[in-house]
Amino acid sequence: MFRKVFVVGSGMSNVGRFYERPLRDLAGEALFKAIDDASNVVPEFIVVSNMLSSQAEQENLASLVADYCGLRGTSGFKVEAACGSGGAALVAGYALISSGLANVVAVVGVEKLSERTTPEVARGLAYAADADFEIPYGISFSGLNALIMRYYMNKYNVGRDDMSAWPILMHENGYYNPYAHLKMKITAEDVVKSPIIADPIRLLDSCPMSDGAAAVILASEEVAKKYNDTPVLIAGIGNALDSTDISSRFELDSFLASRLSAERAFKMAKLSPKDVDVAELHDAYSINGVITLEDVGFAPKGMGAKLVAEGRFKPGDKPSVNPSGGLKSRGHPVGATGVYQVCEVVMQLRGDFPGVKVGGEVGLTQNIGGVGSNITTIILRR
Amino acid sequence: MFRKVFVVGSGMSNVGRFYERPLRDLAGEALFKAIDDASNVVPEFIVVSNMLSSQAEQENLASLVADYCGLRGTSGFKVEAACGSGGAALVAGYALISSGLANVVAVVGVEKLSERTTPEVARGLAYAADADFEIPYGISFSGLNALIMRYYMNKYNVGRDDMSAWPILMHENGYYNPYAHLKMKITAEDVVKSPIIADPIRLLDSCPMSDGAAAVILASEEVAKKYNDTPVLIAGIGNALDSTDISSRFELDSFLASRLSAERAFKMAKLSPKDVDVAELHDAYSINGVITLEDVGFAPKGMGAKLVAEGRFKPGDKPSVNPSGGLKSRGHPVGATGVYQVCEVVMQLRGDFPGVKVGGEVGLTQNIGGVGSNITTIILRR
Repeated sequence: MFRKVFVVGSGMSNVGRFYERPLRDLAGEALFKAIDDASNVVPEFIVVSNMLSSQAEQENLASLVADYCGLRGTSGFKVEAACGSGGAALVAGYALISSGLANVVAVVGVEKLSERTTPEVARGLAYAADADFEIPYGISFSGLNALIMRYYMNKYNVGRDDMSAWPILMHENGYYNPYAHLKMKITAEDVVKSPIIADPIRLLDSCPMSDGAAAVILASEEVAKKYNDTPVLIAGIGNALDSTDISSRFELDSFLASRLSAERAFKMAKLSPKDVDVAELHDAYSINGVITLEDVGFAPKGMGAKLVAEGRFKPGDKPSVNPSGGLKSRGHPVGATGVYQVCEVVMQLRGDFPGVKVGGEVGLTQNIGGVGSNITTIILRR
Repeated sequence: MFRKVFVVGSGMSNVGRFYERPLRDLAGEALFKAIDDASNVVPEFIVVSNMLSSQAEQENLASLVADYCGLRGTSGFKVEAACGSGGAALVAGYALISSGLANVVAVVGVEKLSERTTPEVARGLAYAADADFEIPYGISFSGLNALIMRYYMNKYNVGRDDMSAWPILMHENGYYNPYAHLKMKITAEDVVKSPIIADPIRLLDSCPMSDGAAAVILASEEVAKKYNDTPVLIAGIGNALDSTDISSRFELDSFLASRLSAERAFKMAKLSPKDVDVAELHDAYSINGVITLEDVGFAPKGMGAKLVAEGRFKPGDKPSVNPSGGLKSRGHPVGATGVYQVCEVVMQLRGDFPGVKVGGEVGLTQNIGGVGSNITTIILRR
């Protein structure tokens, strides 16, 4: 780690279903906002994160986005790590600057799912699992997470209402986020009345399938102040891999890659979970939010859901968790989600997030690809 | 550029059509060979390059390959830049080490096309072009390159036999490469008798559709000697982007991204084209080989094909070009090609390439994604 790296610009499109907007248009909106936020700097590298543009027969997105934004002649590539693509792209962006290969890098996460039917997208999301040894048995991505939720609830004697506390908190927070996909408040009764997706996962345990794009501009310590009066330091960044399939895992109620990536990020930042003021965790399903509360170190094992039900992790608590509304309410534009999280935490630390404001000095994001198979944790510091 | 980066291990699978071998098996063969070549080091990061595994409904390849090779708990992600994925992944791998985030990184390029039919793969390769504004008109990837070949031949008054000198030289070299896909010698008469793919491109102007995997182990200067007695320095590395479509280009007979990426790599290495002893260029079609000879600086504009026809660039010339046989004969396992090129040049500089040996001190690779839209040039030094 030879050169410190700062976030000097952030930009997001709304999250939702934008049938009429091409992928490049969403990416361009986010990138132009981020460039504008960074005093109109011209990035030297563009790292694009995306998972499923192949379903719309488009790859080579770094060229596509760079050209659309008037940046021919810059450098770049796409990073893919399933739903964890955004976090992984930030690792690449960090390395490009810290190595000295570039002074200013744009990381642009973008996903456009609404061009495809819901069954097509559900099938696409399963590309994150094992196509040879897992998916042929007919299980979906929701089904895999349902196995984990059932196992966790049974092992730790966690009831339905305790699990429901997570999505209720998410919708309470996301209701005030102008970028959020699902702006509505929900009750425990709403959750149990919502349809079963893959037992015990119900519709209101699940994030929506979203379109959206988010971008950050990263800059080296030498130039960061030139582009933003309030640069936010990437104090720690860690990534870890686990198997794509869950059948060969040693444990189902915890993600090895979540623990390892968080350990790596905290070690690099010389900080610990108790230092974190605000966190954005990856709650594609309620169970993911709950498990990662524990794996990151915010809750003892088996206590994640119970603590949320007791009222912990609300805005103003330490840490506040998912003031954006998380994947559940803000939405989950797959390859862009990890970049949204960083935009949101950066804005919280700067004090200009347009939804629920929680402030603080230290923030954390954790972005999950697959069923815990590729996870990136980032620690940000004002 | 804070820390020097060396190649301390390389490994390749044969290039060909391996219907019966899963993608992870090809990747594992290359990675294990590279790890073996690097004194059995355990890499901390795995960067996988691939373009079209989505056609076989598999993404999240960093987790897949790491798990298959017993490397759970390491870090990683996939890089995609169409046919230029391998070169782009090497940029990411370089940055991870030079930044201090890792000391040892494996870059694994892999492509398995033979699971799909030829029309499906042809359609997949077109994902590298513009899915909204170019492909809907019905043009294929071969068609786009045919437009360039026709324009070039007309503008510089280059005849069919001059163009045929390229594939003849490639097959002459590749005949001796034990890893090559197409081991056969050809004549000018064979070329003109071969079927037209997209006029003026004939079958023998075109690379085959190949499966294959190649891997390199990169290490920081502090540890490189521990893993290999003959580490090869990455003296320069440059990437550049151009538009995905060719209809909006300012020129058709030269690739902006080829020139820019080569300039960046030479500048970083403090070397020039006349210093290069051996080069591996990206000849998906004869015209790509010829144009990049000129763009990299080995031939004056319009003279590439004519110089090859006059006998330049053969083994022993300075530079020797594509002693591996290039994409034309070694083959083009799309996302792996850029990593094959680096393996081949590293082995040439070390003196242990098992085909035509040309030796030398300075080598160059250039890997092209799309129709010149994402290009990486790497300069290697013994």
